[in-house]
Parts: sequence; structure tokens; C-alpha cells
Amino acid sequence: MAVSPEDFTCPVLISDYPNVLLGHGSGGKMTARLIAGLFLPSFANPALAALNDQAVVEWDGTRIAITTDSFVVSPLFFPGGDIGSLAVNGTVNDLAVGGAIPMWIAVAFILEEGLPMADLERIVRSTAAAAEAAGVTLVTGDTKVVDRGKGDGIFITTTGVGIVPAGVSLSADRCRPGDRILLSGPIGVHGVAIMSVREGIEFETEMGSDTAPLTGLTRVMLEAAGGPEGGDGPSTSGGRHAQPSSPSVDRAGIRCMRDPTRGGLSSALNEIAQASGVGMLLDEGAIEVPDAVRGACEMLGLDPLYVANEGVLVAIVAPEAADRVLEAMRSHPLGGRAALIGEVVSEHSGIVALRSAVGGTRVVDMLAGEQLPRIC
Amino acid sequence: MAVSPEDFTCPVLISDYPNVLLGHGSGGKMTARLIAGLFLPSFANPALAALNDQAVVEWDGTRIAITTDSFVVSPLFFPGGDIGSLAVNGTVNDLAVGGAIPMWIAVAFILEEGLPMADLERIVRSTAAAAEAAGVTLVTGDTKVVDRGKGDGIFITTTGVGIVPAGVSLSADRCRPGDRILLSGPIGVHGVAIMSVREGIEFETEMGSDTAPLTGLTRVMLEAAGGPEGGDGPSTSGGRHAQPSSPSVDRAGIRCMRDPTRGGLSSALNEIAQASGVGMLLDEGAIEVPDAVRGACEMLGLDPLYVANEGVLVAIVAPEAADRVLEAMRSHPLGGRAALIGEVVSEHSGIVALRSAVGGTRVVDMLAGEQLPRIC
Repeated sequence: MAVSPEDFTCPVLISDYPNVLLGHGSGGKMTARLIAGLFLPSFANPALAALNDQAVVEWDGTRIAITTDSFVVSPLFFPGGDIGSLAVNGTVNDLAVGGAIPMWIAVAFILEEGLPMADLERIVRSTAAAAEAAGVTLVTGDTKVVDRGKGDGIFITTTGVGIVPAGVSLSADRCRPGDRILLSGPIGVHGVAIMSVREGIEFETEMGSDTAPLTGLTRVMLEAAGGPEGGDGPSTSGGRHAQPSSPSVDRAGIRCMRDPTRGGLSSALNEIAQASGVGMLLDEGAIEVPDAVRGACEMLGLDPLYVANEGVLVAIVAPEAADRVLEAMRSHPLGGRAALIGEVVSEHSGIVALRSAVGGTRVVDMLAGEQLPRIC
Repeated sequence: MAVSPEDFTCPVLISDYPNVLLGHGSGGKMTARLIAGLFLPSFANPALAALNDQAVVEWDGTRIAITTDSFVVSPLFFPGGDIGSLAVNGTVNDLAVGGAIPMWIAVAFILEEGLPMADLERIVRSTAAAAEAAGVTLVTGDTKVVDRGKGDGIFITTTGVGIVPAGVSLSADRCRPGDRILLSGPIGVHGVAIMSVREGIEFETEMGSDTAPLTGLTRVMLEAAGGPEGGDGPSTSGGRHAQPSSPSVDRAGIRCMRDPTRGGLSSALNEIAQASGVGMLLDEGAIEVPDAVRGACEMLGLDPLYVANEGVLVAIVAPEAADRVLEAMRSHPLGGRAALIGEVVSEHSGIVALRSAVGGTRVVDMLAGEQLPRIC
């Protein structure tokens, strides 16, 4: 393991950024560059290279999904939740949008010396309540303490382990022109709830984070699409996609799902478009932005398309399954406002475009730099 | 998930410690108290309550082991390793000493704004090299960045997922009087290597951390003991322990293993003694403490029994298997100095006693407070 410093030069990254910046944690372009320039070449393997929010490995016929996320949100407590419930839901959702059934969760706390014990208790109990609500068992944990001034109250890293049911195989690289883009609800709520605390903004109606476990919503969607178990739903019974080379794609009408957290809806869709080598065309009028979110974003100079969500998902769905999946989403409490917001196109590969209400079209890029640091 | 602050009062803990202290991360008594007083009641479930360094869950006949640990070691680079290799080996070892085969690892980085990119690269590559050396695949990761002054360069949380082979069932609560206590090598090396950097101590011979993956060592030990596959080794063929109620214990001569990190050998053995409700009697002369460790500990006022190790394990082994297991340990590069250091006794349940070279006996308690903050 002894390695000399010379082995580690990566001239491109270093000359661009001699030091780590907040933007490297944004979930946007700078994060993508760090991953592509440093992490992927160092840890090269197929599970990681798929760049999904979770890795799927296989043992003895069982497909095991694994995902990890550190949470550094500031403030620790905010309308609608706290760092504990956020850490559970965020990790549960990364498994759920990958089609896995979230089963077990590991929680590691990094505490700053001087954190009020009452705050820790409140967060631990909220973590436990969120795990119970999401149907996952917290099986193991760890606690470290760092000196005062070397942390920020509490950081939580949650790792989720789930089981991928037979027949489900979602991946960001499986979208095709003609696929529909479905959004489960209004965007920007979590980010604005956090910013409202930081900036002292008051809303006429209370604005709480949308943090919630998406497992139930993803289940009804997969069932409606012809997955996860049956594989003989209407989308495949016609045999139109019965190529034996890709049975798992054919059996489920859902290509992939994402919960657009850091970097927002725009960054999530850009990642998918690039992974699949397709374009996307969104209909601005179909993307619901609550008035309070729009108002706060105007005040703060933010674009709601880049603001973090914690209880919303976007799904890319085969055209023949889209109506059924959308109907299923609307039948679920977390998808009552679900909408068809756009389509996958063969033009402008890797680029997401937005058609405005008045007819103009603009490119919606991945988030550049850091818009809302420490939002999750 | 909405819970009111009143729900979270835990008077005993709060009145004792209104704020989190460094000692709560020591791995000793204060950590144990935090776990027993807050975490266990909040997250109550059998996997967590077993208090092993890893949780074992079962799905479709496959036993999956999960462990997580945050690493906050300071300094980031030290003789013999760095935070990256330490984070991989520490998590791999928690799986290995539980009898699992470490398979996959998830890595989450919390970076402080301003961290030199060259340091990050060096750590990422060392993390990758350690994963390769330990035979685990890094399948997923996460990166967050916190503002300057809200972190300390880099914190790493690693979560390991492994598979427990059939027939292996190690647990801290399975020790019985008469069992032998085996130690794989000299103690205190990692802690002293870190302290030497912090305190500017120079040694005549170079003193590098003992950080290393223990998977290979645990494999040869389990094979020698009659596990993991066969179950018909000499330790059971006589039928002496053939109670049908506990077949897994009977099939393997090893009751449990630990890698004594934070809190040192003493804290690890205290945990096991308490979990099994047995006493332990150690032979001080049999516990190898390198001269450099002894010298540094005298200078710093430390007891080597409480100093962290990162490449050493202690095993509690059935008497009839002890010779074979010890021989197997000595055949492995990481166990060349392995020794029988004591015995499990029926007296003084929950207490570890040490018999000195001159014949006196003293109680060796769990670490109280914080001896070496941020050692891992």
C-alpha cells in the first residue's frame, strides 16, 4: 500500500483546481468532473462505471443493491424534517428509484464536540422514525467525535442495502427516443425550505421540505409498467420488444428513475441523457413550480430546475407504458400531481432542451458550480 | 416524521453530559454508554442488539454481512498509511473478524473546502490500492463538500458488504469458560505511529501503522478450526458439543474474533466478556508490546492495552481447537507472532483481569474517557 506522491499526479484536475471548492459537492458539472477525472479512473469497475445512484451486485442469484450518501445539510433542523430523516429518506430513495426494495440501512455519525446532547437525541429519534416509516431496518452504525471547530454539529452517512426483484433492471443508459418523461410532483420545495431558514424568508403558507420515502410510489409504478415480477404485462404481450438479447429491458416499461436531489431536475435529466446518448425535450408549462418556490427563487436569483428535491422522482418510461405508469403515480399519495413533462428525442444527443410556454426553446444544462451549498 | 422536542428527552444522558465530548467517540465506556443509552433504545432490533462490529441479515438463504465506519483520523497521512487505506482496511477487517468474506465497499467522502486537490488524489488512489489489496470491489460512492472551517480536510465513511459462508457463526456472546484467547501480533503500533506524528516523537527504528486487511488471516483460522464449509473437523467429530440447539457454534471452534481498534485490546475484550457473561484472565507476559510502543506509551502516559491497532486480531477459541488455530495463525504473514494470551473463566463475570509477570493480578477495565482522540 506504500505509494509515493509522484504516483498521484493528475495534471488536468490540479491545474484547473488546486484546491477543493464547494462546487465540487454541488451535484453538477464540477462534481461530474471530479468523478470522471479522479474517482472513476481510480476505482474502475463495471458497477461503478454505470453511474447510477446505486450499485447492483449479484451473489448466488440474488441481486443486491448498495448505495451510500453523506449528509451535511445546514441547518440541522428545517421545516418538514431534519438531517436524520433526510439521511434515511435520501438513501432509501436512491435504492427505490433503482428498482430495488430497500431493506437494511447502516448509519455513521460524525459529531462535533460540543453538540448539544438534546440535539443528538432528537436527530437519532427522527432517524429511527424515518427508518420505520420507510420500512428499512437500521442494522449497524458508528459514532465518531471530532474536535470543536473541525466539524459542524453532525454529519450523517447512510448506506442502504436492498434487493432487486427478478425482472427489474433500470439503468440511466437505457433510454430511447420516443420514451416519455414523467415527474411525480412539484419541484424545488426542499431547497427552498432550507434556504428560507438560512435567509430568514417567510412565506404566507408554511413551506416544509418534501422529504419522504419513495418506495411505495416506485412499487406501484413498476407494477403498472409490467414489472417487477410478472413480465407479462401489456407492454410486452404484443412481442414488439421481444429481442432475447435484452429481456430485462423488455419486461419493464420503465427505463430508469431518479430522485432529483442536489443539482435538481435539470442535472438529473442531463446525466440520464448523457448516459443514454439521447436528447430530451421538456415542456416548461408541464413542470409544476409552486408559487412560493417561484417567488423565493426570483428573490434569491435561483432557477427552480436546479433546486434540490427530496420527495420527487422523475421516470423515463417506454411510450406504450406511459399512460399506465402515470395513472399509477396519480393513485399514490406522493404522486397525486404527477405529470408528463417531456419526451426523449433522437436529436441533440446528450442535451436537455426546454420548450417555454411562449414557444421558444432553450438548452437546460447541468448545474455549473455551486448554487445551494449543503442542501443535503 | 413530525416529532416534537418533548418526545426526545432522555434525562439520564442529558444530565450527565449536556454536550457531546470527544470521549463519546473513544470506543470505550463513554461510547458504550451513548450506544446503550440512546442508539440501542432508538433503533431496537436483533441485528443491532447483538453489538458485533457487523450486522448479519439473511435473504433467500444468503447471509449478508454489513458494517459501516467513519474515519476522522488526524493527521491524514502517517507512517505506514493514510486515511484512505485505513478506511478500507478498517471496514474490511470488521467483516473479516465476523467470519464474512468481504466483497463490496461503498465510500463516502466529506471534503473541506480548500483541501489541496493533490491530497485528495493521493488519498483516492491509496483507497483504491487498499481495496484491490483487500480483494473488495468499490462499487459506489459519494462526495460532499463543506465550507472551510466546518470540516478537517477529509472524513471518509466506508461501508462494507460481505457474505457469510455456510457453517460460520461468530458472535461476541458465545464464549464459554475454558476458551482460549489468541492474539495475532504485537499491540499498540497504529496508535503510536499516529501519536508520533502528532507529538513529533522520533524512534530509532521507523514505526509505521500496522494497518492491513485481515481477511486472509481469518480464512486460515476458520479453516483450521473446522469451519467455514466442512463442519466435520476434529473439534466436533468427537460429538462432545453435539447439542442440536446450537449447531453453528459446534461446527466452528472459533467463538468470535475482534480487531481491537479504538479503545485497544482491553476495550475489545471487555465488550466480549460482557456480551458472553464470562470473565477473562490474561497473561501480561504473553502480550507482545514492541519496545518502541512501550517507550512512547511511557513518555505519553498511555497504557498499550488501550492503544488502537489496525492490523491485529484477537480470537476466542474453543480449547480443543486452540492449538490448530494458533498454528494456522503463525503460518500466515500477519500472524507470525501470534500467541496464546489468556483464558475465558467462569469467575468475575464481565471482568477482564491481567496476571502480571511478578504474579499480581489487576482488573483491566474498558477505556474510560478519551485517550487518543481521532486515532481512526
